[in-house]
Amino acid sequence: MSDGTPAATSPLAERVLAVRLLAFDFDGVFTDNAVYVADDGTEMVRCSRSDGIGLRKLEQLGILPVIVSTETNPVVSVRSRKLQVRCIQGCVDKRAALENLAQELGLTPPEVAFVGNDINDRAALKYAGLPIVVQDAHPDVAELGFYRTNRPGGYGAVREVCDLFATVWSAHKK
Amino acid sequence: MSDGTPAATSPLAERVLAVRLLAFDFDGVFTDNAVYVADDGTEMVRCSRSDGIGLRKLEQLGILPVIVSTETNPVVSVRSRKLQVRCIQGCVDKRAALENLAQELGLTPPEVAFVGNDINDRAALKYAGLPIVVQDAHPDVAELGFYRTNRPGGYGAVREVCDLFATVWSAHKK
Amino acid sequence: MSDGTPAATSPLAERVLAVRLLAFDFDGVFTDNAVYVADDGTEMVRCSRSDGIGLRKLEQLGILPVIVSTETNPVVSVRSRKLQVRCIQGCVDKRAALENLAQELGLTPPEVAFVGNDINDRAALKYAGLPIVVQDAHPDVAELGFYRTNRPGGYGAVREVCDLFATVWSAHKK
Amino acid sequence: MSDGTPAATSPLAERVLAVRLLAFDFDGVFTDNAVYVADDGTEMVRCSRSDGIGLRKLEQLGILPVIVSTETNPVVSVRSRKLQVRCIQGCVDKRAALENLAQELGLTPPEVAFVGNDINDRAALKYAGLPIVVQDAHPDVAELGFYRTNRPGGYGAVREVCDLFATVWSAHKK
Repeated sequence: MSDGTPAATSPLAERVLAVRLLAFDFDGVFTDNAVYVADDGTEMVRCSRSDGIGLRKLEQLGILPVIVSTETNPVVSVRSRKLQVRCIQGCVDKRAALENLAQELGLTPPEVAFVGNDINDRAALKYAGLPIVVQDAHPDVAELGFYRTNRPGGYGAVREVCDLFATVWSAHKK
Repeated sequence: MSDGTPAATSPLAERVLAVRLLAFDFDGVFTDNAVYVADDGTEMVRCSRSDGIGLRKLEQLGILPVIVSTETNPVVSVRSRKLQVRCIQGCVDKRAALENLAQELGLTPPEVAFVGNDINDRAALKYAGLPIVVQDAHPDVAELGFYRTNRPGGYGAVREVCDLFATVWSAHKK
Repeated sequence: MSDGTPAATSPLAERVLAVRLLAFDFDGVFTDNAVYVADDGTEMVRCSRSDGIGLRKLEQLGILPVIVSTETNPVVSVRSRKLQVRCIQGCVDKRAALENLAQELGLTPPEVAFVGNDINDRAALKYAGLPIVVQDAHPDVAELGFYRTNRPGGYGAVREVCDLFATVWSAHKK
Repeated sequence: MSDGTPAATSPLAERVLAVRLLAFDFDGVFTDNAVYVADDGTEMVRCSRSDGIGLRKLEQLGILPVIVSTETNPVVSVRSRKLQVRCIQGCVDKRAALENLAQELGLTPPEVAFVGNDINDRAALKYAGLPIVVQDAHPDVAELGFYRTNRPGGYGAVREVCDLFATVWSAHKK
């Protein structure tokens, strides 16, 4: 990202540099919040191929990416496996899942970022030290984001967040 | 919906508050009116994951959501089941289906809302006390809507209607 | 179509009223010219549910709709069957196919309309008395259309053409 | 392409006329960089039907089209076979793959063009005498393109590149 780079000392950069765990909602973040439904019950979602490169950047920075999804959905498992990202599913309460994981990893809220898009992400967004919403987040949660991506969910939002982290860290190391 | 909230005493709010049954056409309302056709005859449609949250809000208000579709299509059954919404299919005449259901439930036309998008929804839109059309409804029925959604079919139109009901009821209870 | 109605005596209306056979290319006209390719070789295309209503209008006017496609593709057969429209496939030369069909039906070029989108439609567009191109036709054939739809292929172009015919005939009968 | 034709003596035309091998990345170039993921693990991508006509134009000019993809993905094999284009997959280093192929064909870098969209195309773009990026290329590589298409990946970018070659050659022969 050659433009819009946050200054290394900006409030956003400070929060980014504190993060060790970057959690993502799946539907509406990795996807455009659509589900393709076939007449035999098969479900399909639309993801961006650009996300993989971003997630590898995160790992190089020592930041753990994780997908947190309310529903237990095979499609989330399939995509997580392909992206080689840890995935927590079937958690009615995303905030609780996030807190448990943070505790397991010995992390405090400022060390956690969460990317969401709808009202069932509200509590998790309030918990995370760095709450992020996608461009096309539901109006009722859009204001909860400390950062709002320029790209909509499924169209590069995940990559943009990863690029943001890489850019801030790159500026920080200089 | 923090903006565009209809005043509790607006004509729209009055009609919303009277509704007990909220009926939706499927294609073009829950979907973007596209059908994905595979070479083996499989059909697929594109729906929005955001609709589920909206439908649960309706039920909490004691309003019954129902899907009314002309065609008998397995894809409609699949989606209705997933959304846990009652579904009436294979009705040549949607208005008749709507009237029958209203009668069964002991409801009058002002207690019925219908969301449609094309000319085969015309009679049902004229029957319902609160006729709603999606943003991208066919020009020949667009003027029949007492309310026209800001979002196109399949891209949040259903959720927007549900949010409208929740907002009006929330303002009413205050 | 309440606006943009061609006057009953306009050059477009005159050509429309002469047509008995309305032929459509498939890819890029009934679809957005995309093909969805699965890893097992399955192909899928995206069509509009709104087309069916339009095709039924044509038949009520005594105009024969037909799909003419270069490739022999199961997906075209599947969609044609669902829409109950005659389909000519595997014709290297669409113009020849169109001429043969016109001859079989005892029709002259002014009685034929053709809707196309790319350079392999050029000869057929030049043959037809009423050549129509979709909004997003390739620049190299866009100028060949006597009428250019307002809607892109797969997003209502077919319905728009059918509505045009119904509107012109309706004005003519008055 | 009736407008925007590069003058036969422009720097772009000069580079185009030198090219004998035109290599394309797959995801983000032949597709919109999306992947459709089904709950059984099936992957699907969205391609443009318009590409085939373009690739045939290239071959008539004696220019070899080839697809170069990092991943070994059945969907790339399927699409390449349908388009009858040679395909090199599973090459961690696209630049090395490109150099090997050029060597095999006895070509120098100025005789090679490469079309890419993301940072894993960087080295290949720097190697090729005519580096091309798609409209929606990642900002970090967009500036590496000597030519940037007007159309996004999957929405006619490949066809546009092929049309560019045909137009330049056509002007050159006059």
